Amino acid sequence: MNPSSAPAEHAGSTALLTDMYELTMLRAALAGGAAHRRCAFEVFARRLPDGRRYGIVGGTGRLLDALAHFRFGDAELEPLRGVLDTRTLEWLEGFRFSGDIDGYQEGELYFPGSPILSVRGTFAECVVLETLVLSILNHDSAIASAAARMAHAAGPRTLIEMGSRRTHEQAAVAAARAAYVGGFDATSNLEAVRRHGIPGAGTSAHAFTLLHTTGDGPDESAAFRAQVAALGTGTTLLVDTYDITEGVRRAVAVAGTGLGAVRIDSGDLGEMARQVRTQLDGLGATGTKIVVSGDLDEYGIAALRAEPVDAYGVGTSLVTGAGAPTAGMVYKLVEVDGVPVAKRSTDKPSRGGAKRAVRAVRPTGTIVEEVVYRAGAGFSDPDGLDAAGALAGPGLHAEQLLRPLVRGGAPAPGRGGIDGARTLVAERLTGLPWEGLRLTHGLPAVTTRFLP
Amino acid sequence: MNPSSAPAEHAGSTALLTDMYELTMLRAALAGGAAHRRCAFEVFARRLPDGRRYGIVGGTGRLLDALAHFRFGDAELEPLRGVLDTRTLEWLEGFRFSGDIDGYQEGELYFPGSPILSVRGTFAECVVLETLVLSILNHDSAIASAAARMAHAAGPRTLIEMGSRRTHEQAAVAAARAAYVGGFDATSNLEAVRRHGIPGAGTSAHAFTLLHTTGDGPDESAAFRAQVAALGTGTTLLVDTYDITEGVRRAVAVAGTGLGAVRIDSGDLGEMARQVRTQLDGLGATGTKIVVSGDLDEYGIAALRAEPVDAYGVGTSLVTGAGAPTAGMVYKLVEVDGVPVAKRSTDKPSRGGAKRAVRAVRPTGTIVEEVVYRAGAGFSDPDGLDAAGALAGPGLHAEQLLRPLVRGGAPAPGRGGIDGARTLVAERLTGLPWEGLRLTHGLPAVTTRFLP
Repeated sequence: MNPSSAPAEHAGSTALLTDMYELTMLRAALAGGAAHRRCAFEVFARRLPDGRRYGIVGGTGRLLDALAHFRFGDAELEPLRGVLDTRTLEWLEGFRFSGDIDGYQEGELYFPGSPILSVRGTFAECVVLETLVLSILNHDSAIASAAARMAHAAGPRTLIEMGSRRTHEQAAVAAARAAYVGGFDATSNLEAVRRHGIPGAGTSAHAFTLLHTTGDGPDESAAFRAQVAALGTGTTLLVDTYDITEGVRRAVAVAGTGLGAVRIDSGDLGEMARQVRTQLDGLGATGTKIVVSGDLDEYGIAALRAEPVDAYGVGTSLVTGAGAPTAGMVYKLVEVDGVPVAKRSTDKPSRGGAKRAVRAVRPTGTIVEEVVYRAGAGFSDPDGLDAAGALAGPGLHAEQLLRPLVRGGAPAPGRGGIDGARTLVAERLTGLPWEGLRLTHGLPAVTTRFLP
Repeated sequence: MNPSSAPAEHAGSTALLTDMYELTMLRAALAGGAAHRRCAFEVFARRLPDGRRYGIVGGTGRLLDALAHFRFGDAELEPLRGVLDTRTLEWLEGFRFSGDIDGYQEGELYFPGSPILSVRGTFAECVVLETLVLSILNHDSAIASAAARMAHAAGPRTLIEMGSRRTHEQAAVAAARAAYVGGFDATSNLEAVRRHGIPGAGTSAHAFTLLHTTGDGPDESAAFRAQVAALGTGTTLLVDTYDITEGVRRAVAVAGTGLGAVRIDSGDLGEMARQVRTQLDGLGATGTKIVVSGDLDEYGIAALRAEPVDAYGVGTSLVTGAGAPTAGMVYKLVEVDGVPVAKRSTDKPSRGGAKRAVRAVRPTGTIVEEVVYRAGAGFSDPDGLDAAGALAGPGLHAEQLLRPLVRGGAPAPGRGGIDGARTLVAERLTGLPWEGLRLTHGLPAVTTRFLP
């Protein structure tokens, strides 16, 4: 199917997906005269989730779509009449973001302090975007980051996202998208199939087997016959509703040795996979694949590396970010009329001034460090050439990380889709220093150097 | 504002917010002839999140709204043409759920094994609802449960939900709603204000103070003046952008002793609150309230009980379920044509047969136990009278927990709104045995007895 034919994600306005204080600040800034000062806001994460070695930027594409629908029509203005004055309501009525946005590409690695997104324009037009920007980037980056860890753990084996039931019904669609970006191969979520063109997957649950129960008792074979008749022998039969050995025997008896796959959803998955593989091979079903599911996370996936598993179905741990359900990114005002600004706080480092970042890469492709530096006037230096001289070591290539996303309120050319983002994740993981791919807790895989 | 004037949450169809396997099962069941068997599915949680003593049912109202929009139009059927056959597509085209649903009221307590929702009809019409039902109940119950713990910890003090930026942009709206049900007083989320009529809250962030920076340096007083001029002296001034003592001094200097509140977002909140209270009182601003925010969870809230805090702003921990971002509820087929069915599994207890539940309550209002029993023919015994005789002890009142939500596909009368759910949470918490309100990890506060 062609995802471009699908209904837009944000058929309505996204403008009220916003914290009230963005608009009360707008009101006060309009009244006080500061609303039109030129500002730069930056999105960054002060730290990675506990022990994580890298983060993956997710949601950039969704954000750009949502931004195009950030409009205050009558339906959005009406509930604000009690909160805002006429001047503010009129300003909102005509609102179009007209500034510039640069950002790390979707699928890019990030580390503590990476300036993931740079939003520049008047205070008024930048401040109102804060909540929407953070909601999308924090959610999608959390899922994409978890997915990348799982994808690395799974190696070449297939990963199926099936966590829709464990998260908010719309978050589920975004989670399927972010999982695909992170390296998953398919999703159970039909709306994600429609909206984003992600390959779909899924055949049956225990309910289907249990349905084939009569007064005479359960009839697993009848369930398998019905499924194979409807979906073909290439289907995946769920074999652990009753006795798993009997289930496998019946599955092959019904579907023949050309059965596509069996799924195991309970028990010690490694032990079960070995037994089932031996049984399938003994029955001649040597091409029948084994899909495992049930409370898998990246550690569970990795623990099954030596077992005869062909595909993993992952639900809860993926959609809840594998222990880190939000990426903890913040959106901070860093520059006003060219003057760097920062909150004075002891426990939260905050660096003023609009910034750019390059990554220093060896000729072998291995990342050495990230270098963050103050952007020049007009946010120049698109190729990171100014900073290249500051790299620690000869022979290093400096790759500019902030790419133009929006110019004068309009989408910048060259925007990649989710397949491009997915490819980027896979590429970037090969560039990490090898410690960075360990699942164990540790420090960020790449250090970030902040030039004064 | 009147929430009934707001656009519906599900302006489009909710039908594709569904796992693919629900529809491949439907296809196989239609082809095999089992699709029209009378089935009962039940939603329950096998356990509470680690150490939790109770759960709160959230999302029932949202589910009933979403159910009314579960329709397969052309836009939903088109992407399914590659997956389903003509018979299934035609069945979906005319689909209207025509069965019965009973459920625990929104805001009701639940415990492991509580039959939170009972969905009865043909296999076909019940199975397709699984994903949507679980997405909504798992998300909203996780947030409502976390919110109730926080509300109890806060006692009579005001709780403001401000976590939108830490979760998916639509999950944020549902989280604000669930937080309100759980006992929060207000939300920062404007869409939740519009859609659900929840009181809104929010005034300004550090960005507003930082905005008032010129070549001569920061000017916190200018920011305060602009805010007070626009929003009045009743506003809340954020006083910790620079030096907090100076911030409080400037705030009162600008707004006078009638200043509504100050907000503290960093540092040791208890120590800061004490200092600020003393300073405010010394300045004569004895009525100025203190709002604290910044990485608060139920423990952080409880730790501030003895401090002069008037209101808490809670973000990340609330919208991520305070460590339990999903409620772990499942949707299981329990009965086919009157025959109880259950998966045979060693580690996951599953009890066949459609069930009802009563809660045994002392005359003092204290809950003694929950009793789960097999429903009679036609899901009778609406008052729990059959089970009352099975209660452990004389003088106990049996309260029926499953209430009619849908009858013959149509909403049952007497549906409560979110204010009713919020009131119910507060009532139910007073009925818990007192150990049940402790924040420490422990066993469920109420035991559930399953009659054979």
